[in-house]
Amino acid sequence: MFLNIHFFMDQALALAKKASDLGEVPVGAVLVHNNKVVLENHNRMRQMRSPLAHAEFLLLQEAHQSFFQYNLSQCDLFVTLEPCGMCATAIALSRLNAVYFGAYDPKHGGIEHGTRVFDQKNHYFKPKIVLAGVRASICEKILNDFFFSLRF
Amino acid sequence: MFLNIHFFMDQALALAKKASDLGEVPVGAVLVHNNKVVLENHNRMRQMRSPLAHAEFLLLQEAHQSFFQYNLSQCDLFVTLEPCGMCATAIALSRLNAVYFGAYDPKHGGIEHGTRVFDQKNHYFKPKIVLAGVRASICEKILNDFFFSLRF
Repeated sequence: MFLNIHFFMDQALALAKKASDLGEVPVGAVLVHNNKVVLENHNRMRQMRSPLAHAEFLLLQEAHQSFFQYNLSQCDLFVTLEPCGMCATAIALSRLNAVYFGAYDPKHGGIEHGTRVFDQKNHYFKPKIVLAGVRASICEKILNDFFFSLRF
Repeated sequence: MFLNIHFFMDQALALAKKASDLGEVPVGAVLVHNNKVVLENHNRMRQMRSPLAHAEFLLLQEAHQSFFQYNLSQCDLFVTLEPCGMCATAIALSRLNAVYFGAYDPKHGGIEHGTRVFDQKNHYFKPKIVLAGVRASICEKILNDFFFSLRF
């Protein structure tokens, strides 16, 4: 089955823009099953007053709750920023099939940086597909614009 | 201020036993502020059909929500099992003052094993106090008894 990764990342980007309008760090995420978006979310750290309210984490929690399913191995995640160590471990625990992310996060990222969760030898699971840099420059720009606007 | 760590770990252990009675993997956690337990929880992976419903993670999420506070730097966490990489990163993000854990988890642990979250050089934050092995043998026994009972 052909998966249009740019199409789905654009939907995640639309959520990131929505987050930005709400004063949230602009990161958006969508969960895809059978070539359709089944759930979407964006960062809500400000709204929820919680440093744990990352777009993809909220999405995974909601997915388990909505589908009443322990295992999300039929689902793919699209997120505009590299997941942190918390979210990357959650992705592994949820047994996602694939994760596609946009911008790299050298400071807090946990896939290509930091704890590099999926590279751990004794790690119980990792997604079959991990693709970095999808629409990276646009995903990065929306973050840079947001932080730039905070400074002035 | 004197903190009776065994007293608090015993409260976490009581929650682990409660989890066991509910058929949950027996891990319990309490959050302590000003020498008092302010929140408590246990694993709810079975109840919530979610591999993310770890005792200490649910506790932290609830803490941000209840106290409407981004930063938990006045709080100490007691948990009967070594936190995984997801929970250890959440502990760092929440800026906890201290984490005390009981049994070691060589397979999924993320503090003394695996991603060793707090040992990351570029990690943004780690608790001032990280103490492993508090009431370790009792914390381990309740887990072993639980898994043993599943087999027969």
